Amino acid sequence: MSNNVLITGGAGFIGSHLSDFLVNRGYNVIAVDDLSLGNENNIRHLMQNNKYIFHKIDVCDYKRMLKILNGKNIDIVFHLAANSDIAKSYDDPATDKDRTFMTTFYTLEIMRLLNIKKIVFASSSAIYGQVSKKINEEYGPLLPVSHYGASKLASEAFISSYASNYNVQAWIIRFPNVVGERATHGVIFDFINKLRKDPNTLSVLGNGEQTKPYLYVKDLVEGIYFIFNNANEKINLFNLGVETRTKVNKIAEMVIEEMGLHATIEYTGGERGWVGDVPEFKYDLQKINSLGWKAQISSDDAVRKSIKYILNK
Amino acid sequence: MSNNVLITGGAGFIGSHLSDFLVNRGYNVIAVDDLSLGNENNIRHLMQNNKYIFHKIDVCDYKRMLKILNGKNIDIVFHLAANSDIAKSYDDPATDKDRTFMTTFYTLEIMRLLNIKKIVFASSSAIYGQVSKKINEEYGPLLPVSHYGASKLASEAFISSYASNYNVQAWIIRFPNVVGERATHGVIFDFINKLRKDPNTLSVLGNGEQTKPYLYVKDLVEGIYFIFNNANEKINLFNLGVETRTKVNKIAEMVIEEMGLHATIEYTGGERGWVGDVPEFKYDLQKINSLGWKAQISSDDAVRKSIKYILNK
Repeated sequence: MSNNVLITGGAGFIGSHLSDFLVNRGYNVIAVDDLSLGNENNIRHLMQNNKYIFHKIDVCDYKRMLKILNGKNIDIVFHLAANSDIAKSYDDPATDKDRTFMTTFYTLEIMRLLNIKKIVFASSSAIYGQVSKKINEEYGPLLPVSHYGASKLASEAFISSYASNYNVQAWIIRFPNVVGERATHGVIFDFINKLRKDPNTLSVLGNGEQTKPYLYVKDLVEGIYFIFNNANEKINLFNLGVETRTKVNKIAEMVIEEMGLHATIEYTGGERGWVGDVPEFKYDLQKINSLGWKAQISSDDAVRKSIKYILNK
Repeated sequence: MSNNVLITGGAGFIGSHLSDFLVNRGYNVIAVDDLSLGNENNIRHLMQNNKYIFHKIDVCDYKRMLKILNGKNIDIVFHLAANSDIAKSYDDPATDKDRTFMTTFYTLEIMRLLNIKKIVFASSSAIYGQVSKKINEEYGPLLPVSHYGASKLASEAFISSYASNYNVQAWIIRFPNVVGERATHGVIFDFINKLRKDPNTLSVLGNGEQTKPYLYVKDLVEGIYFIFNNANEKINLFNLGVETRTKVNKIAEMVIEEMGLHATIEYTGGERGWVGDVPEFKYDLQKINSLGWKAQISSDDAVRKSIKYILNK
C-alpha cells in the first residue's frame, strides 16, 4: 500500500498543485518547503485538511528532516525542491549547486536512511542543453547550458546510482516550461512587470523568435501521476510536455492584449534571451503518448491562462 | 601561449604520470593534491625540477587555492582529483559526492574567478552505467550504477554549463579502467593481497566472466595529450580506451602465474563483482581512432605490466 507521500518543494508553484491533486486522491501528504521560493499562500487552503501536514524546513537540513519523517512510513517521495530561477545563478553557480543539486542528494540520503524505495523526480528539459532537433529520452550527449540544467542532470545521475545501489525505483520526469496559476516568475511575469512600469514600450530579450512549449500546470500534475501509475521499470525516464509551442513575440502580444494596452514591442536582438537560454526546443513525446497520455491544454492557451491569473482576471 | 598548467590530483596514479609527461614537454606544472589517495613517492623525482611546483592542498579549500594560484597565469587545468575507489562509497555516498563531484565544482569556480578558459577533465566509462552494446560518445540515456559514475556525470554536466556561461573550452575524456606503474588499488591489487594471505586459493567476486578493457597508463596520458592537441570544439567529448579487453578470470590466472603459485580459483558467482560493478563493457573508439590515435599496449599486456610492477619484478 503506497499511500504516504513526501513532497519536497511542496509550497512551490508545482508542488502545491501536486499536493492538491494527491490529497484529493486520498494520499496522506507530508509537504516540506523552506519557503525561499515557495509561498504559504499556495497551501493555506490545505492546512486544515487531515490528509495534509506541512513543515517549513530546508531539505538539506537532513538531520532535522530525519527526525520529522522518522516513523512516518513514507512510501513515495515526490522531489520538486529546487532553485527555479534559471537565469539567476550565472553570477553565483552555487545557487543551483546548493538549491537544485544538493537538495536532491539529501533527499536521496533521507530515503536511504529511512528505507524509502520510490522517488518521482522533477527533472527538466534543461538537461538536454541547446538542441534544435526533436529530443527523445535516449538523446545524447547531454550538455546542459545552464547551471540549473547541470544540477538537474547531476540529480538524475545520483538518482540512478541510488536506484542501482539501494533498490530504489525511480520516475525521472523531464518537465518543459510550466505555466499556470501560482507561477512566480518567468517571461510572462517579466513582460507584465515591464509594462506596468512603461505601458508604451515592451523590450523583449533576444529576437522574439525563441520558441518553447509551455505546459499547463494542471496537465503537468496529471501527467506526473499518469507516468507514476503506468510505467513500472526500475528507472522510468520520460519527457513530459505538450506538442504545441509558443514564440516569445506571441507571448508579448498576448500580454499586451490582456492588459488592454497598445505598447510597441522592441527586440534587443540575438537568438538567446539570456546567457544559458535555449532558443529553440522541441520534445519527442512518443514515449508518453504511446502510454496513453496527452496534454489537454495547448501551449498558447496555457500561456493565456497564466497571463489572466497573474492579472487577476 | 598555453604553457602554464594546473594538475589537480597531481600526486595520484594518473596525475603523476601526466605531470612527468607535461614537464618533459616543457610545460610549467603546478600540481595540487591533498595526498588522501595521492602519494609523495609518485612525484619525489619531480620536486627538484624547476618546471614543477607541488602544493599539498584540498581543491575544495578553494579560498586557499585562489591565493596559491592568483597571478600564476594558468592557461589549462587538467582536473583529475577524485575518489578513485569506486566500491567504497556504497556505505557512504558522500565520499564520491565530496571527493569526485565537489572537487570538480570548486575547480570550475577557481577557473571562473581566475579567468582560466581551458579544462581537460578525467571523466569515466562509469557515466554510461550498465550497457552491453558498444558505447559511443553520443550514447544515452546516461544511467550510472555507481556513485562514482554519478559524480563524474555530475561533473561533466557542470563543465558543460561553465563552458556555456563563461566561455570555457573543455576536453571531457572518458577513461576506461587504467593500469600500470603507481596504480594503488583495483582488481590486481585485491588478487595479490588475497594470495599473499592464502597462496593456495584465490576467491574471485562474481563468475569471472566480467570483461573490461584495461588501458596502460602511459597510453592514457599520451591519449589525453593527443585529444587536447587535436580536437578543438567548444566541448570535446571523447571515449579513450583500448580495443582489446581482459576477463577477470584471465587476470586471476596471470597474477597466480606471475607470483609463481598454483592456487585454485574459486568464484563467488553472480555476474557482478560488487554492487555497482559493470560486468561487461565495450567502447566504440571510432571518434578517437579517426583523429589518428590508437593505444600501443593491449589490455592483457597492460594488466601484466601492472602485475609485474606491483610484484616489484
